[in-house]
Amino acid sequence: MSQCLSYAASAARAPLAPLRIDRRELRADDVAIEIAYCGVCHTDLHYAHNDWNNTLFPCVPGHEIVGLVSAVGPAVSRYKVGDRVAVGCLVDSCQHCAACEASEEPHCEHGATPTYNGRDRQNGEVTLGGYSQNIVVSERFVLRVPEALDMRFTGPLLCAGITVWTPLREHGVGQGSRVAVLGLGGLGHLAVKLAVALGAEVTVITSSPGKADDARALGAHDVLLSSDAQAMKTAANRFDFILDTIPRQHNLNPYLMLLGRHGKLVLVGALEPLEPIHGALLARNNRSISGSLVGGLAQTQELLDFCAEHEVLPQCELIAMEDINAAFERMERNDVKYRFVIDMASLRD
Amino acid sequence: MSQCLSYAASAARAPLAPLRIDRRELRADDVAIEIAYCGVCHTDLHYAHNDWNNTLFPCVPGHEIVGLVSAVGPAVSRYKVGDRVAVGCLVDSCQHCAACEASEEPHCEHGATPTYNGRDRQNGEVTLGGYSQNIVVSERFVLRVPEALDMRFTGPLLCAGITVWTPLREHGVGQGSRVAVLGLGGLGHLAVKLAVALGAEVTVITSSPGKADDARALGAHDVLLSSDAQAMKTAANRFDFILDTIPRQHNLNPYLMLLGRHGKLVLVGALEPLEPIHGALLARNNRSISGSLVGGLAQTQELLDFCAEHEVLPQCELIAMEDINAAFERMERNDVKYRFVIDMASLRD
Repeated sequence: MSQCLSYAASAARAPLAPLRIDRRELRADDVAIEIAYCGVCHTDLHYAHNDWNNTLFPCVPGHEIVGLVSAVGPAVSRYKVGDRVAVGCLVDSCQHCAACEASEEPHCEHGATPTYNGRDRQNGEVTLGGYSQNIVVSERFVLRVPEALDMRFTGPLLCAGITVWTPLREHGVGQGSRVAVLGLGGLGHLAVKLAVALGAEVTVITSSPGKADDARALGAHDVLLSSDAQAMKTAANRFDFILDTIPRQHNLNPYLMLLGRHGKLVLVGALEPLEPIHGALLARNNRSISGSLVGGLAQTQELLDFCAEHEVLPQCELIAMEDINAAFERMERNDVKYRFVIDMASLRD
Repeated sequence: MSQCLSYAASAARAPLAPLRIDRRELRADDVAIEIAYCGVCHTDLHYAHNDWNNTLFPCVPGHEIVGLVSAVGPAVSRYKVGDRVAVGCLVDSCQHCAACEASEEPHCEHGATPTYNGRDRQNGEVTLGGYSQNIVVSERFVLRVPEALDMRFTGPLLCAGITVWTPLREHGVGQGSRVAVLGLGGLGHLAVKLAVALGAEVTVITSSPGKADDARALGAHDVLLSSDAQAMKTAANRFDFILDTIPRQHNLNPYLMLLGRHGKLVLVGALEPLEPIHGALLARNNRSISGSLVGGLAQTQELLDFCAEHEVLPQCELIAMEDINAAFERMERNDVKYRFVIDMASLRD
C-alpha cells in the first residue's frame, strides 16, 4: 500500500478538497501510473454532487487519465516504466462473458468496474479516480498513448472521445457519409472533428446562431439552425446519420425528419425519458434511434491511434487542481470550450 | 375502358356496397388481372371509415390481391394470359430515384402510388383496389405467385407478410437468432411462421395467457407473459430482435429491457406518438428502435418464393364479398384468426 494526494468530495455538494488516499500494492498484472493530466467529465460533477443518489463518499472523480508508468507488477508484459499510458472509464470487468470476449467491456454481463465509485472485484474497496497523483490499474485496462499525441489534450478522448467514436464506427461512418452532429459541447466538438477525419460530410445542427463560426472552425462543412423552420424543412431526408449529444430531455421528432432512407440517430447525451417519439416518423425511411455506451478497450486504443495519425485532439482549457470547484460551476453554465483538463503537476503536498 | 363490379365505401361510416367502376384501357406495359382472392387489411377499414381524414370517396379498398392474368398490353414481357399473379400495396412509383433504383419503391422520393386511395401518375384518377372483379396494373408492379402457393391464402403475404418480412431480412434474422414477436394478430402470426422458417428461436410475448397454445401451434418455441413480472425480469437481455406488431400506443420500456447487446426492436404496428422511451435503456446494450414500411417489389417476390419453398402460409378465414361489413366489425373486436380473405367468386353481377 502506498499513499498519494487526491482531490475528493466528502459529501454531496461539499466542494472538492485535498485528501490523502491509499493505492493498493501492485498485483502481478498491475501497472502504477503517475498521473500527468486528467480530463473533467460532466459525470464527475454528477457523482461529486450525488445527483444520482449512488455516490460512495469520499469520492475521487476522474476517468480521463493520462500519465507515465512508474512501476509494474511481475506479470506485466505490455508496459514498462516510463511508458505513456491512459486509463478511461473502466478498470476491470469479468473477462469471460460474451461482451468481454468481444472487447465490449462496458457491456460486461456481470457489470464492469468503473474507474471511480465502483467496487474493486478482489477486495471490494471503493475505486478512486484520476483527480490524484497516481493510480494502480491492471494492465488489461491500460491504454497506450502514441508518441504523436500531445498528452495535455489526450484525456478527453478516454470518455468524450470514445463515446462519440463508438457509434461513428458501429454505423460505418466514412467517406461520403452525410452526418449531422446535434449539440456542440465536449462530445459534439469531438464528434465533428472525428467525423470530418473519417471523410464524412458534416453538418452541425444548433439552436444558437452564435455557434456557426465555432462549428466551421472545428471543420464542419455546414451549419443548420434548428430554429429556422424553412431550413429544417429543406433538410428533410438529408442525413444518413445524426449523432445527438444533447444531454437532456428533448423532442427528437424534428431531427428524425432529417434522416434519409435507413438513416440512424444515435443518442449519447440524454440518459432519461425522452419526449414522445412519433412511430410514423420511424416507419418513413425505416429510420432508427439507438443508444450507445462508451466502446471497449480495443476500440479505445483504435481511437487513440486514429487521433495520433489524423492529428485530432479535443480543444481543452488546462486548469490547476485547486480550480476544480470553479470549473464545475462553469460547466454547469456550459461555459467551457470544450473540455477542462487538470494539470496534475499542480497537485502538490 | 372496361367496367367491373366492386365493393366500395361511398362515405365515411357508410357500409361497403356494390358499385360498378371503370378500369382503364391497357397501356403498353399493363397487365389485366381477374381477381380470385383479396385479403382484408386493417388499413382497408381505416380508409373505408376515413379514420385518417384523407379518404377519396368512393373508396374501393384491397391491396392483397391474387388472381390470373386475363390480358396483357403489347409491351408486356414477363406475364402472359393465365399466369398466377399478385399485386400488393403499390401500383406505381417514380422509377428513377435512389429508393426505386434499390427496389425500395415504398420509399420512393416522389411518393409511391398506393393501390387504392392514390392518384394514377398519368391521368390523375383515383386508384381503386382489390375488392373488385379485376384490376389493371403495370407489369412492373405485378408479382408472380409460385405454383406451390395456395392462391386462397397468398393474399395476406402482400401486405401483412411483407411488413414483417422486411425487418426480419434487414436485420439478418436467421439460424440461431433469438427473436421475440410482440402481438399475435395478422402481422404477428406471420412473423412467427417466417422467423421459425428462417431458423430463428422464436418467443411470442403476449399479455393473454390464452394465446400460449395458439403461439405454439404456429411454431413458436416459447411464450413469455408480459404480465408475469418475474418472467419478464428473468428474460432481461435475452433477445437479439423484437418485432413489435402492437397496433396502438404502448410502453416500449419493458420490452427494451429484454434486448441483449446490439439488440433491435422494430415497430411495424404503432404509427402514432409512442409513450416516453427511457434513453438509458437504449444506451445499455446499445439497443435500437426502428420503424419499417413494407418492402419493395424485389423483396416481396423473394417472400412469395420463400413461402412457396418453406410452405409458409397465413391462417385465413375465407369470406364472401357481401360479408365484408360483418368482417370489419369482427376485426374491430380482434375476432379473427388471423386474417380474412375475400373469395372474389362471390362477387357476381
